[in-house]
Amino acid sequence: MTQENKTSAILLIHCQDTPGIVVTITEFIHNNGGNILYLDQHVDSEHGVFFMRIEWDLENFAIQRDKVAEYFETLVGSRYQMNSQLHFSDKKPRMALFVSKMSHCFHDLLARYECGELNVEIPVVISNHSDLQVATERLGIDFHCIAINKENKKKQEVKQKLLLAEHNIDFIVLARYMQVLSDNFVKDYPQRIINIHHSFLPAFPGGRPYHSAYERGVKIIGATSHYVTAELDAGPIIEQDTVHVSHKDSVEDMVRIGRDLEKIVLARAVRHHVHHDLLVYENKTIVFE
Amino acid sequence: MTQENKTSAILLIHCQDTPGIVVTITEFIHNNGGNILYLDQHVDSEHGVFFMRIEWDLENFAIQRDKVAEYFETLVGSRYQMNSQLHFSDKKPRMALFVSKMSHCFHDLLARYECGELNVEIPVVISNHSDLQVATERLGIDFHCIAINKENKKKQEVKQKLLLAEHNIDFIVLARYMQVLSDNFVKDYPQRIINIHHSFLPAFPGGRPYHSAYERGVKIIGATSHYVTAELDAGPIIEQDTVHVSHKDSVEDMVRIGRDLEKIVLARAVRHHVHHDLLVYENKTIVFE
Amino acid sequence: MTQENKTSAILLIHCQDTPGIVVTITEFIHNNGGNILYLDQHVDSEHGVFFMRIEWDLENFAIQRDKVAEYFETLVGSRYQMNSQLHFSDKKPRMALFVSKMSHCFHDLLARYECGELNVEIPVVISNHSDLQVATERLGIDFHCIAINKENKKKQEVKQKLLLAEHNIDFIVLARYMQVLSDNFVKDYPQRIINIHHSFLPAFPGGRPYHSAYERGVKIIGATSHYVTAELDAGPIIEQDTVHVSHKDSVEDMVRIGRDLEKIVLARAVRHHVHHDLLVYENKTIVFE
Amino acid sequence: MTQENKTSAILLIHCQDTPGIVVTITEFIHNNGGNILYLDQHVDSEHGVFFMRIEWDLENFAIQRDKVAEYFETLVGSRYQMNSQLHFSDKKPRMALFVSKMSHCFHDLLARYECGELNVEIPVVISNHSDLQVATERLGIDFHCIAINKENKKKQEVKQKLLLAEHNIDFIVLARYMQVLSDNFVKDYPQRIINIHHSFLPAFPGGRPYHSAYERGVKIIGATSHYVTAELDAGPIIEQDTVHVSHKDSVEDMVRIGRDLEKIVLARAVRHHVHHDLLVYENKTIVFE
Repeated sequence: MTQENKTSAILLIHCQDTPGIVVTITEFIHNNGGNILYLDQHVDSEHGVFFMRIEWDLENFAIQRDKVAEYFETLVGSRYQMNSQLHFSDKKPRMALFVSKMSHCFHDLLARYECGELNVEIPVVISNHSDLQVATERLGIDFHCIAINKENKKKQEVKQKLLLAEHNIDFIVLARYMQVLSDNFVKDYPQRIINIHHSFLPAFPGGRPYHSAYERGVKIIGATSHYVTAELDAGPIIEQDTVHVSHKDSVEDMVRIGRDLEKIVLARAVRHHVHHDLLVYENKTIVFE
Repeated sequence: MTQENKTSAILLIHCQDTPGIVVTITEFIHNNGGNILYLDQHVDSEHGVFFMRIEWDLENFAIQRDKVAEYFETLVGSRYQMNSQLHFSDKKPRMALFVSKMSHCFHDLLARYECGELNVEIPVVISNHSDLQVATERLGIDFHCIAINKENKKKQEVKQKLLLAEHNIDFIVLARYMQVLSDNFVKDYPQRIINIHHSFLPAFPGGRPYHSAYERGVKIIGATSHYVTAELDAGPIIEQDTVHVSHKDSVEDMVRIGRDLEKIVLARAVRHHVHHDLLVYENKTIVFE
Repeated sequence: MTQENKTSAILLIHCQDTPGIVVTITEFIHNNGGNILYLDQHVDSEHGVFFMRIEWDLENFAIQRDKVAEYFETLVGSRYQMNSQLHFSDKKPRMALFVSKMSHCFHDLLARYECGELNVEIPVVISNHSDLQVATERLGIDFHCIAINKENKKKQEVKQKLLLAEHNIDFIVLARYMQVLSDNFVKDYPQRIINIHHSFLPAFPGGRPYHSAYERGVKIIGATSHYVTAELDAGPIIEQDTVHVSHKDSVEDMVRIGRDLEKIVLARAVRHHVHHDLLVYENKTIVFE
Repeated sequence: MTQENKTSAILLIHCQDTPGIVVTITEFIHNNGGNILYLDQHVDSEHGVFFMRIEWDLENFAIQRDKVAEYFETLVGSRYQMNSQLHFSDKKPRMALFVSKMSHCFHDLLARYECGELNVEIPVVISNHSDLQVATERLGIDFHCIAINKENKKKQEVKQKLLLAEHNIDFIVLARYMQVLSDNFVKDYPQRIINIHHSFLPAFPGGRPYHSAYERGVKIIGATSHYVTAELDAGPIIEQDTVHVSHKDSVEDMVRIGRDLEKIVLARAVRHHVHHDLLVYENKTIVFE
């Protein structure tokens, strides 16, 4: 849907719902020469909150690119006490990949990256194991092995943050990274860390969801991608999907079947994040698609 | 999403895409005191066509209900050569159900009707068999058995049309009605006859799709709801879904499994039609959901 | 798959896994003139347990129908300490339907019953409200309204059990019956009470799963049919399915969307039970399909 | 389900259905000391054909591994005029991958291979372009670029066959290989060439299925893996799956969304082939799972 070949501006907005918001925003864009390419809005009637994603062509827009945010805030945003984010379609977000030993999400994301499907830059992969070093470096991506244990966690997270800063990272994807990030780390990247959990949350949070699923005898298994928050496996859900299993499937079968789900669900979440399709409100996501 | 408890106006629009359409329409509504409840737009960039569904609260709207269409056409529509339809949320469409002997879609739609899920009036059921008469009349709905054969088709369709006129019918649902309507009949109800076909069209058009599916050894079967046009099984598709089958499933198993698909897919299509979520352009549907 | 037009015998077996079981059972059938129509076996390698469903044509079987169970137990079952159940395909199980006010599962099951899809007898519907009386009695089925409250529960369950005994009921289906059965009641019908729960258990057990799902912001909702055990919503799962929802869906939308899932998932579970496709072991089901 | 850590024998059988087949086969295995690990049978009642997959532990089996096929044919197979194939679980099939420029199925299969999910050897990748050479050779797999055009096709296929022979190839996977193999080539590998087609066949066979799907306005797209036969896109279907699309999805969106389907559907088909779960009869597959 997104027009990827033109430079466009994307506004993500939420504010209290009031009559006139849509008109005010569309007038701001139209009167200044912007052609609206895409508009999606949603009202959460329970909380009385207005959400919008609007995208317009910058070609003949009267306001200079680096002034758009200021003008919008002054002329529109402040009037409605809006929370707004402005993005430009030609700016590729810079993504860091955190991995451990399991390779399916890693390979899947890199294959999408390699063929140009993911509109991101991936300058760095960080792992607590060296298994995926060769496959990373083949693509000219920096690989850093930072082993983590209980004692060194604090120190190692400092190293990680330095690397992220050095590489100018916009957001982090935990592609089956088997370490829990500290609260401090998480707080530095609000709505900027995407995790994939191998169950249909809130069922089976924590460490061994396929074992729990097998034990309970469920007939479906799932995967959930979510933004990481301080509370484990409780952040805003971005994408979920499920697949049927039967009594014939052992835990190992579930692990294998689940891998296909995990990689698809994670890739969809990354795509939404990269395309600026996502807003978070009250620990829930609004996904404009 | 639709706000069902207030009276709202719903505009479905398509026209050539030009800058300024969104602003013009939203200004028309806002400046006259209408509160926009829902807005969804789509641009078909291949054909350069703009599509919109917009819904607003009529409570404080300055223009009288019976003048809205005229005012909109004069002030907005004619400027952009728009095709537009106006609907009001408190007007229940009147639906006629055409059935034969198979009862699953019939029972499913009537159960939804009975519990208030479908925002329609169903004043009449027309069948070429009497099997479903008792179950129809239990709900206080008129039932007419109009047997059809090659010789009497023309005459019987006249009877059907008289009944439809008499009951002031807005649209027709063919719930596994086993007769092909004549071109003349179809032309009188453009985009107002919904059919359910028991395959994932365009695969297996025509009479015995489950037999063909079995013969070909497919691993999925499907169902398709579409608007009826002069060309058999080739009208604009509204909804489709599929389900897995295996080598163990006989034609009879497929027929049984397919029934669940048919009733769900047909009910979704009817719901979209009733909620004015549908536009047709170049034999394809735009489904605003 | 089941050959419904011939009279066949169906054995469901589980026992400790040992070499030779399959041969012994198939010899017992073949040597006595039985033609095997269907054989499915499964070994739970974690627990070392053998499961089998085997079905054979009784036409030329040397052992009289009412002696088959005894002969099998003496000649085969006792040798391997088997748990076995014997069923005959021409014996229609007698099912009681428990309902409250919500009608979608009720209507769906009765529509299947009416068109002959479900190979059961339904002699009685029991409800704590009278809403569905007319729709029940139209099909010649007894309807009993037995209102339940905290005070009268024990007494009313006695009435229910008398009705079940009187109607010679084999199993009970709770079609969105809004009462929790007492432990005593449940114990009298082990693996003979099927419930439909409106979430993908173990997520969202208890009373208001759609509200909890909305609150958590999940992107899928589900339904689970299971055998009722003393522990609420924790019995062996028979069938589950899920469907996608989005941020646009209110609790009411989820309730509506969920209804279609509930009725399909419940109907599949009832079908498996009626076709003797189900074994329970350690609170999990083996579903031979 | 398959017991992957023991050496087992796998028999795939089909023959005319007659009483006594199951007993005869299971006696042959049991009486010679084989422990049956898995048995699945199916009768195609329309054609009166019996199908079976049976797997047993070879540990204490009285007949030498290289004599099993001969003994089975003499003692059992010839009696029932069986078609049978014998496989051993510890023999990894040798697979050749044919690719062009599109990399998603290629990367996905190699990632599965690298992490040990696919129980095959992949000694060689053959392509008509050199794009995937580096990614192939990184894993120590031979890569051969054999450009094909109308003039040189016959000659180049000879080269391909020499490579296949040299590498002792058991079966071929066309991972979005954009050339049509000649009838002669196909006939040399009956039921040993697996293709992935990017539509839910029989809808949209041939070259540009996503364009046709877009044109027709379907609401689902699909992918089909099948054995290649002389007739294009008409061979026995192994796996199919579908995914929902909407009016918002352009052809390019469908191509992208379809990629995820194609790689999953192809991988499942390859897995079934490698695990000897597949029989072909009358241009349809029996998939034992």
